[in-house]
Amino acid sequence: MKVELRQATSADAEALWSLFSAIFADGTTYAPDERTSQASFLTDWFGRGGEQWVAEADGRLVGAYTLRPNQPGRGSHVGTASYGVDASTRGLGVGLMLGTHSLERARALGYAAIQFNFVVSTNATAVRLWKRLGFQVLATLPGAFRHPALGAVDAYVMWRSLP
Amino acid sequence: MKVELRQATSADAEALWSLFSAIFADGTTYAPDERTSQASFLTDWFGRGGEQWVAEADGRLVGAYTLRPNQPGRGSHVGTASYGVDASTRGLGVGLMLGTHSLERARALGYAAIQFNFVVSTNATAVRLWKRLGFQVLATLPGAFRHPALGAVDAYVMWRSLP
Repeated sequence: MKVELRQATSADAEALWSLFSAIFADGTTYAPDERTSQASFLTDWFGRGGEQWVAEADGRLVGAYTLRPNQPGRGSHVGTASYGVDASTRGLGVGLMLGTHSLERARALGYAAIQFNFVVSTNATAVRLWKRLGFQVLATLPGAFRHPALGAVDAYVMWRSLP
Repeated sequence: MKVELRQATSADAEALWSLFSAIFADGTTYAPDERTSQASFLTDWFGRGGEQWVAEADGRLVGAYTLRPNQPGRGSHVGTASYGVDASTRGLGVGLMLGTHSLERARALGYAAIQFNFVVSTNATAVRLWKRLGFQVLATLPGAFRHPALGAVDAYVMWRSLP
């Protein structure tokens, strides 16, 4: 499977919503739930500045990320990012590719660090990936995520400096 | 000075902007800086759900807070809040009054905890107040705030459970 990254455009809106609405419906990895509307998702994804990228394989969107300042103004030198990978292509390295690319972009854009605000502690794939990419857990938010099967589980604030 | 709290209305928009634009111009306590527009501030304050309250003394707005979910959906049982006190009334207990009231409201609304995402570590008044009200530092975000006089200083993620 050959995967290529390119910047997202408004023409990707439907495919992005298809990917993320499935993630929200699954309910095990992201705070937004099945009640999230397409409009609010797209406003959140494209309407907060920064850069949005998509991963394509055989002309199909299989992953995406958005990278933007985590705070405005006096905190805008620290970035944050969100990622999604299509369920059918998990385990094939798309997440690692997106994560690696986003760190390169963050460095190129001059961010001093990347902060993830809400990594679900039971999302082992994500936690392992972020640690592999140099992130550390700065805080454990006790019971901050209502997991559909496990009940209240912790979420992590994760951080990686970009020296 | 007799201070009374009431819920904010759209009629408070100008007075709120007057209070917060001065705070942003000062630049020592909040990420939004002097480039923040009135429209974006008001959208942020009133447009993200939750409750907004103001403190009045002699018919003048001297403080305010907003209380809302920190995450949507599966994280919405943890709240977050922002506060502002007019410079002319600092040290008179308005911050303590707002903080105490917001915790009562958070409990009444069923929040399990309150998380502050970005407390500037050099804002000693705020850090002391939040510790007094039972908050603890869960994470230190290294150099996450560009202080106008001190350069890059840490910011804290603070947390208080509401059992």
